[in-house]
Amino acid sequence: MQITAQELAAFIDGKVEGDPTISIHGPSKIEEGQPGTVSFLANQKYESYIYTSKASVILVEKDFQPAGDIHATLIRVENVYEKVAMLLNKFGELQGEEKVAEIHSSAVIDDSVQMDDSVSIGANTVLEKNAVIGKYTVVYPQVYIGSNVKIGSNCIIYPGVKIYKDCEIGSGCILHSNCVIGSDGFGFAPQSDGSYKKIAQLGNVILKDRVDVGSNAVIDRATMGSTVIEEGVKLDNLVQIAHNVVVGADTVIAAQSGIAGSTKIGKRVMMGGQVGIAGHLQVADEVKIQAQAGINSSVKEKGKAMFGTPAFAYRDFLRSYSIFKKLPALADRLRKIEKENNK
Amino acid sequence: MQITAQELAAFIDGKVEGDPTISIHGPSKIEEGQPGTVSFLANQKYESYIYTSKASVILVEKDFQPAGDIHATLIRVENVYEKVAMLLNKFGELQGEEKVAEIHSSAVIDDSVQMDDSVSIGANTVLEKNAVIGKYTVVYPQVYIGSNVKIGSNCIIYPGVKIYKDCEIGSGCILHSNCVIGSDGFGFAPQSDGSYKKIAQLGNVILKDRVDVGSNAVIDRATMGSTVIEEGVKLDNLVQIAHNVVVGADTVIAAQSGIAGSTKIGKRVMMGGQVGIAGHLQVADEVKIQAQAGINSSVKEKGKAMFGTPAFAYRDFLRSYSIFKKLPALADRLRKIEKENNK
Amino acid sequence: MQITAQELAAFIDGKVEGDPTISIHGPSKIEEGQPGTVSFLANQKYESYIYTSKASVILVEKDFQPAGDIHATLIRVENVYEKVAMLLNKFGELQGEEKVAEIHSSAVIDDSVQMDDSVSIGANTVLEKNAVIGKYTVVYPQVYIGSNVKIGSNCIIYPGVKIYKDCEIGSGCILHSNCVIGSDGFGFAPQSDGSYKKIAQLGNVILKDRVDVGSNAVIDRATMGSTVIEEGVKLDNLVQIAHNVVVGADTVIAAQSGIAGSTKIGKRVMMGGQVGIAGHLQVADEVKIQAQAGINSSVKEKGKAMFGTPAFAYRDFLRSYSIFKKLPALADRLRKIEKENNK
Repeated sequence: MQITAQELAAFIDGKVEGDPTISIHGPSKIEEGQPGTVSFLANQKYESYIYTSKASVILVEKDFQPAGDIHATLIRVENVYEKVAMLLNKFGELQGEEKVAEIHSSAVIDDSVQMDDSVSIGANTVLEKNAVIGKYTVVYPQVYIGSNVKIGSNCIIYPGVKIYKDCEIGSGCILHSNCVIGSDGFGFAPQSDGSYKKIAQLGNVILKDRVDVGSNAVIDRATMGSTVIEEGVKLDNLVQIAHNVVVGADTVIAAQSGIAGSTKIGKRVMMGGQVGIAGHLQVADEVKIQAQAGINSSVKEKGKAMFGTPAFAYRDFLRSYSIFKKLPALADRLRKIEKENNK
Repeated sequence: MQITAQELAAFIDGKVEGDPTISIHGPSKIEEGQPGTVSFLANQKYESYIYTSKASVILVEKDFQPAGDIHATLIRVENVYEKVAMLLNKFGELQGEEKVAEIHSSAVIDDSVQMDDSVSIGANTVLEKNAVIGKYTVVYPQVYIGSNVKIGSNCIIYPGVKIYKDCEIGSGCILHSNCVIGSDGFGFAPQSDGSYKKIAQLGNVILKDRVDVGSNAVIDRATMGSTVIEEGVKLDNLVQIAHNVVVGADTVIAAQSGIAGSTKIGKRVMMGGQVGIAGHLQVADEVKIQAQAGINSSVKEKGKAMFGTPAFAYRDFLRSYSIFKKLPALADRLRKIEKENNK
Repeated sequence: MQITAQELAAFIDGKVEGDPTISIHGPSKIEEGQPGTVSFLANQKYESYIYTSKASVILVEKDFQPAGDIHATLIRVENVYEKVAMLLNKFGELQGEEKVAEIHSSAVIDDSVQMDDSVSIGANTVLEKNAVIGKYTVVYPQVYIGSNVKIGSNCIIYPGVKIYKDCEIGSGCILHSNCVIGSDGFGFAPQSDGSYKKIAQLGNVILKDRVDVGSNAVIDRATMGSTVIEEGVKLDNLVQIAHNVVVGADTVIAAQSGIAGSTKIGKRVMMGGQVGIAGHLQVADEVKIQAQAGINSSVKEKGKAMFGTPAFAYRDFLRSYSIFKKLPALADRLRKIEKENNK
């Protein structure tokens, strides 16, 4: 596939600055740009590369002011990230394997499963009774889909995903390899002899539309009712969602974060990696939680930024931490005053 | 299935307060209670819901004092959590699929494997030579059971579990999807050129009876001897247990916690989520470790509560942390004194 | 297999102190040593066991000075750890199952796959089109190898590993169960309505030679270009490597650590467990990062030791933390001064 800078600009609503006839066959990172590729500058940290990049075309923000000479043809756009997404998805389609819907002969599919010709089922995948798979959904090999599971249309279920019985997956969801949906919540009743008795977990997991789940992430089923992941939520690899949690729409959770049981997370919340949130809490919409922070009480203020363990306001944490780093000097100063006062 | 409040109370040794003839078909959460369901109040945080819940029956502690009118029939019991466990398990049995022991034709089972008619083996599961599976154990699809592995009776092994050779699983254990038992410990000998040489891991993993392992958790085999998980231990999702660790009976470890090599954890220890424990340490019985804490020296006092990284006594940590939050003000006060003293 | 202390000493270049004719059949831990086994003292924490161990032979450092009587025959060596590795590997070979290269009949292998007779492919493993597997590589059951994946020679791929299309694995690599190589990087473009649009991840993952990856670890593919793990890197269980990360040669990363997108880690870096490193950073060669530390800015000094969240110099952190633990007393002293000054 070859596309000119001019055609490319038209596709992403951009303005060409330089040679509009130059020909492109794929994308590249700005620091590794090669002739014939289109690159982009979205993070200003990488600006220095724009002056040396060998990429033929570079996407920049509409109002980008170069600090030096640039050899590439520029395309000025609004929201470089968004346009890169469009572009990569375009190249992705063009490079993508031609997916022919196919049911592999080694798949083990109960007679009661409902799906039509547009569905792909990979080798050694198991579909238990009464599972329902929506149109154009692609299920890779070695997937397990339990009884009564419902999966919407246009989903991609990568190899090794396990979905326990009764769970529901919306449309347009992407589940990456070896993630587990619907395993038992971690619920045990303490017994008088110091041991624990398992509490049956009778609920399920509901993923609404356009939810992405990372590799080896786990979402536990509810004790009763449902663990719910709302529309558009993006969960990174190795994330843990406990029983009866609700994650609000368009919330983004980075890798290795965990949310304990029955906590309700608002909409458009952003969580860095390795964040922990205790159980039975509420986190307001648009709250931002720094990586490794530990939330142990509800966050009621919309959009509040949090840091530390236990977490409090981000800027306050940084102020305290900057003094923490100087505590030895502070202690010395205190000692000095005491000494002077006791003279 | 329908059961009256009176029958239900008899089953869990409770006392009915209200209509004993009211009929129940399943459980519900108190905030989502519907007519015909039994709900419960175990966590006082949720007390407000008891006054508005539509559940027909609600379990409460024996000495619960309502602060307002309650429409539901109450059943007063000792230890609501324990009784809920009984109740959910009862409903679980009644709703459960009728499990017929079956060996799926696609399972790959070495001729030397020992098991009887009561065992279920799911589709595409692989059992290597000399594996032994105890009575009534259910092995779901896509499980791998290595050579010489012994599994006790009445276990449930969910889809995708991988058990390396020579490991031993007790009776009544539950292993959730994609957990890994017996992969190599992380042992390498530094070489003079800065590289590392792998140390062969010749031991195994032993899980005693009634151990639960969460989805995507990992327990590594010992270098020599055994990594041991004692009776009744409950490990949540994504937990990491390194080589030669011993976890004492009835210890409970929440999600994403990790224990480094050769550490010995006592009995009835409670660990929150994302806790880390360094290698070659001892942790006494009944120690309680707050979420995200990092233990880097042995905890010798039974029942001690720990917090922070590196962790120290829970209350002491909270006292220090409450001042940490006010450090900027404290530094200002110090500056003020210095200024006054230098006048 | 039986070997004498003398033969054993010759194999590991050691000097016998005691009976050179004593016969050994396997290794043991010093605290569990039994007659007929060889044990070792590598960590001085365990020295007390050497005086009571029933092991017939014990490896010690060349210059080890016993503080009491030892019943075992000693073998003095340079670098006990290295010699134990040699020894365990020797016993491992002797105890190991005879691996006969075999393609299991249930494996699903595309006609275009390239491999020779020396390769083993386990039951229910899937190899997609144009995959290439090097000589003597052992692929266990239930593995997924995507299209165009290249795997070098002498690798071991344990059950349940999933490798997405286009990824490259070097020679001598060991991939433990259920790890995932090449899932999509966590890249999304924020949209004006508060939702996120997935950015296609068109790159791949490259593992160079002698890389070990732990169970349930995840390495995401690059957005463009490659996520690269250099020669000799050892990744423990449940580690997360995000898109476009580069990990330098012989770096060792303990369990549950995570590295965010586009960060470059130097050579021979050592990371404890549960470490987090933010995106777009650089970490110099030989940096040492304590467990649970959080790195949020580049570490430019070679060999620097880091601790805390956000991390700074290890010793400085410890100094600050020792005062943090005494903050309540410090605050009291400050109050006392204020009171005196205001008299």
